[in-house]
Amino acid sequence: MEQAMPRGGKRAGEMRTGEMHDAVLGQPMRWNGWGDPAKAKELPFAVRSLIPLLLGRIKRPGPPPALTDVHIPASALSGDDLDALRDVVGAEHVDSDDAARIRHAGGRSTPDLLRRRRPEQLAPDAVVRPASHDEVRALLDLAATRGIAVIPYGGGTSVVGALDPERGPHHAVISLDLQRLHGLLDVDEISGEATLAAGTTGPAAEALLAARGLELGHYPQSFRYASIGGFAAARSSGQNSAGHGRFDTMVTGLRVATPTGDLRLGRSPGSAAGPDLVRVFLGSEGIFGVITEVRLRVHPIPRERLFEAWTFPGFSEGVEGLRQIAQSGGGPTVIRLSDEAETAVSLAQVGKIGKALVKGASVVTVYEGEDIPQRRERAAQVLRAAGGSSSGQGAAEEWLHGRFDGPYLRDALLDAGVFCETLETATTWSNLSRLRGAVEDALREGLSDADAKSYVMCHVSHIYPTGASLYFTVLAGLRGDQVALWQRAKGRVNDAIIAAGGTISHHHGVGRDHAPWLAEEIGETGIRILTAIKRELDPTGILNPGAVIPTASRAS
Amino acid sequence: MEQAMPRGGKRAGEMRTGEMHDAVLGQPMRWNGWGDPAKAKELPFAVRSLIPLLLGRIKRPGPPPALTDVHIPASALSGDDLDALRDVVGAEHVDSDDAARIRHAGGRSTPDLLRRRRPEQLAPDAVVRPASHDEVRALLDLAATRGIAVIPYGGGTSVVGALDPERGPHHAVISLDLQRLHGLLDVDEISGEATLAAGTTGPAAEALLAARGLELGHYPQSFRYASIGGFAAARSSGQNSAGHGRFDTMVTGLRVATPTGDLRLGRSPGSAAGPDLVRVFLGSEGIFGVITEVRLRVHPIPRERLFEAWTFPGFSEGVEGLRQIAQSGGGPTVIRLSDEAETAVSLAQVGKIGKALVKGASVVTVYEGEDIPQRRERAAQVLRAAGGSSSGQGAAEEWLHGRFDGPYLRDALLDAGVFCETLETATTWSNLSRLRGAVEDALREGLSDADAKSYVMCHVSHIYPTGASLYFTVLAGLRGDQVALWQRAKGRVNDAIIAAGGTISHHHGVGRDHAPWLAEEIGETGIRILTAIKRELDPTGILNPGAVIPTASRAS
Repeated sequence: MEQAMPRGGKRAGEMRTGEMHDAVLGQPMRWNGWGDPAKAKELPFAVRSLIPLLLGRIKRPGPPPALTDVHIPASALSGDDLDALRDVVGAEHVDSDDAARIRHAGGRSTPDLLRRRRPEQLAPDAVVRPASHDEVRALLDLAATRGIAVIPYGGGTSVVGALDPERGPHHAVISLDLQRLHGLLDVDEISGEATLAAGTTGPAAEALLAARGLELGHYPQSFRYASIGGFAAARSSGQNSAGHGRFDTMVTGLRVATPTGDLRLGRSPGSAAGPDLVRVFLGSEGIFGVITEVRLRVHPIPRERLFEAWTFPGFSEGVEGLRQIAQSGGGPTVIRLSDEAETAVSLAQVGKIGKALVKGASVVTVYEGEDIPQRRERAAQVLRAAGGSSSGQGAAEEWLHGRFDGPYLRDALLDAGVFCETLETATTWSNLSRLRGAVEDALREGLSDADAKSYVMCHVSHIYPTGASLYFTVLAGLRGDQVALWQRAKGRVNDAIIAAGGTISHHHGVGRDHAPWLAEEIGETGIRILTAIKRELDPTGILNPGAVIPTASRAS
Repeated sequence: MEQAMPRGGKRAGEMRTGEMHDAVLGQPMRWNGWGDPAKAKELPFAVRSLIPLLLGRIKRPGPPPALTDVHIPASALSGDDLDALRDVVGAEHVDSDDAARIRHAGGRSTPDLLRRRRPEQLAPDAVVRPASHDEVRALLDLAATRGIAVIPYGGGTSVVGALDPERGPHHAVISLDLQRLHGLLDVDEISGEATLAAGTTGPAAEALLAARGLELGHYPQSFRYASIGGFAAARSSGQNSAGHGRFDTMVTGLRVATPTGDLRLGRSPGSAAGPDLVRVFLGSEGIFGVITEVRLRVHPIPRERLFEAWTFPGFSEGVEGLRQIAQSGGGPTVIRLSDEAETAVSLAQVGKIGKALVKGASVVTVYEGEDIPQRRERAAQVLRAAGGSSSGQGAAEEWLHGRFDGPYLRDALLDAGVFCETLETATTWSNLSRLRGAVEDALREGLSDADAKSYVMCHVSHIYPTGASLYFTVLAGLRGDQVALWQRAKGRVNDAIIAAGGTISHHHGVGRDHAPWLAEEIGETGIRILTAIKRELDPTGILNPGAVIPTASRAS
């Protein structure tokens, strides 16, 4: 899912702390939807009016089952297995009741949420909550010995099937919930580094750092619930990536438990001591080991923040502006360009859809930190030269308002029978327009073949000197088995991404959903490298079976 | 060896092209020393005067043998082996004569050069020069089948023993000279990317790019001879790293030939499609495969350049200034701080040593690209606040003058019997002073135990938000077997680096010299990861045996 950002106006640090409290308090997410159950909402009137115009008449499905009405298979763990797990973490940290198992049954992709609305579901056989690196290590030993698959579980926000309760060849599967690996373990203020336990959520991490005057500055849309270890394992990228970089670039060290040994990686900034093994675990999504601690580059909480929105005649002019910003350096902390379709519908302005159908393509910029007036002036020159005109501070603040609440809208759409999903890719600047066209064509054709009207929006929210991300939001009037129909259309999109030179994922990851396409991205020799590492560290294959490495290649 | 930089004054691009010509023309390096044989020089009078004061009386050794007087073992390749090699690349590109073999007998560390001064030497059994990726691949197939070890050879500038003609368990060893993999293969000006053949030297790459108005901007001291593939394989870092980053961060894609398959890696800027496999090959030093093409981030040739030198009361004040520059961002393109010992001797000012024993610690800054006045003013504020005072443009230009000629001085010192070597490490800002002390103590004690007076200098030349490099130059009056005496002292230094939390190498790499310490840096589980990849891609172990992965671990 896409990134979000607390509302602007006050000092950056203060606001963020305020935005965080529900996740800091450890309130669990809605079991079959996004976020805080108390924030679930009806579809706004404007959206209800727009849907028939865009997608035709859609029948509202019956209400989803209550948690207590869902049926899952009995736990496959023996009493002896459960006793052994309890011996490691304590009886109170092993849950094999249905409610806990259903809550850990998957991530938060639209297919995940649609599966949660079915009366029959799959689920892990137990949820186990270790409190330390050593307990993680002991659990991996135990699981390898007993033949129990292990699904590492951080914030539960995967949207690529990385949390499916797949047991592979093993007799059972547990969800390894890392929420008790919590806290700020070390701060080095001189070096600007902090070490966090992997299960610490985004808001908890920022609150702990804020007490020291520091900020990490990683704000993906999953921020409120996702964990530090999950950001690392899935190569996350947040809204401030123009200023602070992808999560990859923030990580300076990792502690990892594998079934066959431990690692402490990232000894030094700037090293030529062989390949950087930190990078082997960034993006490994729990298939090689479990990240238990993450050392991160942090910075003082920015004292100033400036918002400015821009309007471009069209998406391509906006892209040119963003490219020049990316290649000249030192620009905004946040920059995001919506295409004409996204700008017009202003999906992000929850409660305002349809009110003001803005023409052209809109850009939001946020500046944080030092030298804001100079950076803004230099960026403004570039954006003006590319055809943009400033639409002021207010428009950017309004655009940002409620961005954390975006995913709640999806739940309301699903309640109304409207299919809504997102997907993302990236490529070089010179290939961006071609890739966007290929993805949109594949989406429209795939959904049209499923006899569904669709509405596709796109934005660019992560820029690099050599290229950028493309993030698509699709609304579709899918009738029938939405999961199956979408999977067929999504497969076509993945084929189109590969054919048009894009990456199969910019920041959602591979999981199980993208695994069949990974070989086309990194080649069979690339898959062999991943398989060799997997075989060495996890010879019994207990860790997240079926994720990242496509099953066919693994068998070969 | 440390980075260098063409002299300033004119437009950056113009000057560099002028600086490059000898290497562009493919003139081979001096066989038993550095660089252009015509530039070999006598020790300047000032240095000759200083040495007895610093190191005591040193006996000048006899003259080294001429190339034609060196004895090497007969080639172990059979006539059949040689015919098979000739079938792949053509007879004229397989050299098994003594001169070619001696020229490829190793890199350019001081022990390498001292070994080149011996009458009996080791050498590869032939030098083979493929012209394409497919020829490299065919040679690897052939070598794997026939049991011939392969040492990939770029510019021949390794200073960590990565080019030793080690055959491992195989019956022969060839030097795979990549100089014919030459040229600019592709330029994408919109995305700011260029693809270069791996054997292209630094100056040739810059000349090819300059014809398109572009620059890579990677200027390590090895620049004139080292190759693009070598920069990638050894995780090089150049003098402009403060502005353009380490070579790691410039690489956007790689093409690699391994004994069991090919790879094209780096599909997209910004990807979450599993671990970044480009990073598996950056730092692999030819043990997994041979890098044949490198895609790189490039930028327009900077139109402006500004030099400024600074003086600090001492090294620690200078470090504080550099730290604040690194953590605030947007500073100089080049920044380098010499400690009191290096400042005093001004080693880099060839021909001026001893003339002006400057007090304090000197800093050189260079700004290239956009917004130079603003960047300089901001950096100046930081450096002044940290206790620095500007010593003007002239001092920085003078300091930089002749930096490409620094390594020639080492040859003259060796001729005079003075041992001179460099080593480097890195750590976090908070640990920098401790690490520097530990290395200097180990150097002094190690050399003192070898009954040698020594003079140790240190500088910081690569800065990161979380830490910095430390680069040491040591002069020693080693009597007897200088190679053996130094190896003992260097081992003590490596132990001290590990104990004090530093990395075993910041930018020289692992090679064979640092391999025994790698397990202490990445752990036994880390070594197992490297070994598993090696076993998968190079099951017969023909590629650079003994480099990077310590032999003991490989056997386990």
